[in-house]
Amino acid sequence: MAQKPSIPKGTRDFSTTEMAKRNYIFNTIKEVYALYGFQQIETPAMENLSTLMGKYGEEGDKLLFKILNSGDFMHGMTGEEVANTSTLRLASKFCEKGLRYDLTVPFARYVVQHREELTLPFKRYQIQPVWRADRPQKGRYREFYQCDADVVGSESLLNEVELMQIVDTVFTKFGVRVCIKINNRKILTGIAEMIGQADKIVDITVAIDKLDKIGLDAVNAELADDGIPADAIEKLQPIINLSGTNAEKLQTMKTVLADSEIGLKGVAECEYILSKLGDLNNQIELDLTLARGLNYYTGAIFEVKALDVQIGSITGGGRYDNLTGIFGMPGLSGVGISFGADRIYDVLNQLDLYPQEAVNATQVLFVNFGEAEADFCLPILATLRKAGIRSEIYPDSVKMKKQMAYANAKQIPFVAIVGESEMAEGKVNLKNMITGEQSMVSPSEIASVIG
Amino acid sequence: MAQKPSIPKGTRDFSTTEMAKRNYIFNTIKEVYALYGFQQIETPAMENLSTLMGKYGEEGDKLLFKILNSGDFMHGMTGEEVANTSTLRLASKFCEKGLRYDLTVPFARYVVQHREELTLPFKRYQIQPVWRADRPQKGRYREFYQCDADVVGSESLLNEVELMQIVDTVFTKFGVRVCIKINNRKILTGIAEMIGQADKIVDITVAIDKLDKIGLDAVNAELADDGIPADAIEKLQPIINLSGTNAEKLQTMKTVLADSEIGLKGVAECEYILSKLGDLNNQIELDLTLARGLNYYTGAIFEVKALDVQIGSITGGGRYDNLTGIFGMPGLSGVGISFGADRIYDVLNQLDLYPQEAVNATQVLFVNFGEAEADFCLPILATLRKAGIRSEIYPDSVKMKKQMAYANAKQIPFVAIVGESEMAEGKVNLKNMITGEQSMVSPSEIASVIG
Repeated sequence: MAQKPSIPKGTRDFSTTEMAKRNYIFNTIKEVYALYGFQQIETPAMENLSTLMGKYGEEGDKLLFKILNSGDFMHGMTGEEVANTSTLRLASKFCEKGLRYDLTVPFARYVVQHREELTLPFKRYQIQPVWRADRPQKGRYREFYQCDADVVGSESLLNEVELMQIVDTVFTKFGVRVCIKINNRKILTGIAEMIGQADKIVDITVAIDKLDKIGLDAVNAELADDGIPADAIEKLQPIINLSGTNAEKLQTMKTVLADSEIGLKGVAECEYILSKLGDLNNQIELDLTLARGLNYYTGAIFEVKALDVQIGSITGGGRYDNLTGIFGMPGLSGVGISFGADRIYDVLNQLDLYPQEAVNATQVLFVNFGEAEADFCLPILATLRKAGIRSEIYPDSVKMKKQMAYANAKQIPFVAIVGESEMAEGKVNLKNMITGEQSMVSPSEIASVIG
Repeated sequence: MAQKPSIPKGTRDFSTTEMAKRNYIFNTIKEVYALYGFQQIETPAMENLSTLMGKYGEEGDKLLFKILNSGDFMHGMTGEEVANTSTLRLASKFCEKGLRYDLTVPFARYVVQHREELTLPFKRYQIQPVWRADRPQKGRYREFYQCDADVVGSESLLNEVELMQIVDTVFTKFGVRVCIKINNRKILTGIAEMIGQADKIVDITVAIDKLDKIGLDAVNAELADDGIPADAIEKLQPIINLSGTNAEKLQTMKTVLADSEIGLKGVAECEYILSKLGDLNNQIELDLTLARGLNYYTGAIFEVKALDVQIGSITGGGRYDNLTGIFGMPGLSGVGISFGADRIYDVLNQLDLYPQEAVNATQVLFVNFGEAEADFCLPILATLRKAGIRSEIYPDSVKMKKQMAYANAKQIPFVAIVGESEMAEGKVNLKNMITGEQSMVSPSEIASVIG
């Protein structure tokens, strides 16, 4: 017992300061989601393994945290049977439930399970932790929050438009300058069609993405290494060299993809979305190298990069055509977005962008000099709290120094000092902890000085 | 795949309406906690089993959800070894982690683990789900939220006073009339000492608690059945018959417990707490039958009963002397409170006490008649959202009836209708969905009509 207790690797405690900052992030995102008519749902931490297995690939299945069945999880298996069964099979025998791995699959399950209660289009957001048995490393945790918003049951591109506006509004509120990158899976499909290399589209985008870093010749060499034939590489040149404004890029792509129906559809979708955005505070950039790993995207895809911090994508999303098909409800299109709360947290920390009022907790601490003084303070505290001022009295009448240290540690901006002379005057000595200034004020004036 | 997906028994999905109501509850409690200087922390869902095991009794150990180690959880055990090991031992071999069972043990672990970073007294609140492999039944879930606040590192009774004020404020905000019951473990210890039946104190409080229902004779008979000697029952009569105001009850107890130092201390603590509360909106009642199950309480204990709904205790808490001793940090006293969010949810539902603004989501829906009309609406939506009005445009230009059904299903109070004539006039036809009233307003007037 003497050993200091600890928490599982890859998990975190959040201190009061960290929570204040995280709440600021989550509340800002929630508020913007709500401004656009999204409503919150929550799903259980545990899902049936039958819901989760097979949805994240073979690797994903291994990364699911599985929960041991309670009671007799062996249900009569003999030692011999156990010895003759693979670990993965045993896990399925011993466990019926697992912790959710993301919010997308539980959302799909939710939509199918509650289809009769839902009015489509369904605009939901969800902010909950997910768990992955990944090897922990810097910036990668086994428990982390996702903040997703999705619209399902509408194919309108206005949904994409609004999601881009949400991204712009959220990062404007945070004060983080970002570049919103958009692309369209249909354009990528069109490119693959055009050069007859449907299976190479990821290799192609990866290679093109290196243009700035390694130059055109090296990109072309890499494409050749990837097994792309010379004529296909030739056809890719206008795409690799694509530049100019979004309108110019789209104009070029119309020419390049003139023979691909699906490619042109992707271009038209991009044009539509860009034309309806209105005034954004952040730049939005068509980026054909944006592919996003997830195979279920079928239309617009987007990603957000912070401009002033070196960090991976801090938000992403896209359009999918068949989220719920796997649960027996095909043909439901949707589009979604996911803010990367942990990375946004790091960005706001690095740029020191937390507003003071978001991080501040208690506004005034009353020093405790003993029972008579505390009795004088208690009704004042009650009045302040009624006025919405976050107020504390130090619970014990210990040395002043200790009480002031407490105020400093909690970064409380005002300390109210009430001793005999203040009580005699019916006043409070209010100390501004930042300027050091002290003033005698009547109890009724405190709120206006602090507030 | 055709089978409708489901969730593990004892768990719940929360719909948008349920979440709005739950958020109202959590936000109200959070706000009041913050008014009293409590700050939020969060701990991981998973704790090491070494942290959790043995803290909740033998029964509790069985109710822990254990997480199968990832990878080769058998770590080389042979079939024979498996066959010769008990299920409980195997569970410990296969699992290093478990889901948290309450917020108290993780909090104790947190305090010990982070002792160097903390300034005492530490006033924290924590609102997170907990998991118990209990048999699910009406009102009992395998995943549910707890909302705890605790102060550790201060023995001052002002903490108890403030927790009672918090309870009073929270239920006043909810509009729920409650009775706050308080007692003190020291009084119960005093009673047990007085009659020489230290181990019978729970039986005694259970029997006394039935006075109203079964009458004095039956209570005395039950005490005798419990093995309490006649002379002890005789001594208990003033306690069983205790009545009057809190002051009168305390006066009686001073006489009854005159020979018990610890009993008198409990009485004095109650007196002190009651004398410092100030004006409460709810009644507070000294109730000697209040024992609370948890053995770790050592001083004041309290529970809250709703007056207008038949339901068990909706909030409870108390003073403990040695929360962190089990993790090697003895002597840290604390006092805490826990709001029962699920029961409070039921109470507010039954009494229909949710304020409309807490449940309302989108404030205005713009009907979508096509691209030209949508183009007219989009800048208006942008302006409204900047003004903080939660606004939507129906994403697809489908039949009006379907769009109005959507507004009704989401209980959106205003619908903005923009067709050719409205566009020609540069106005919006704003329909109040509750009164049915329609009026032509200019875009700049919408916010003031809705807001």
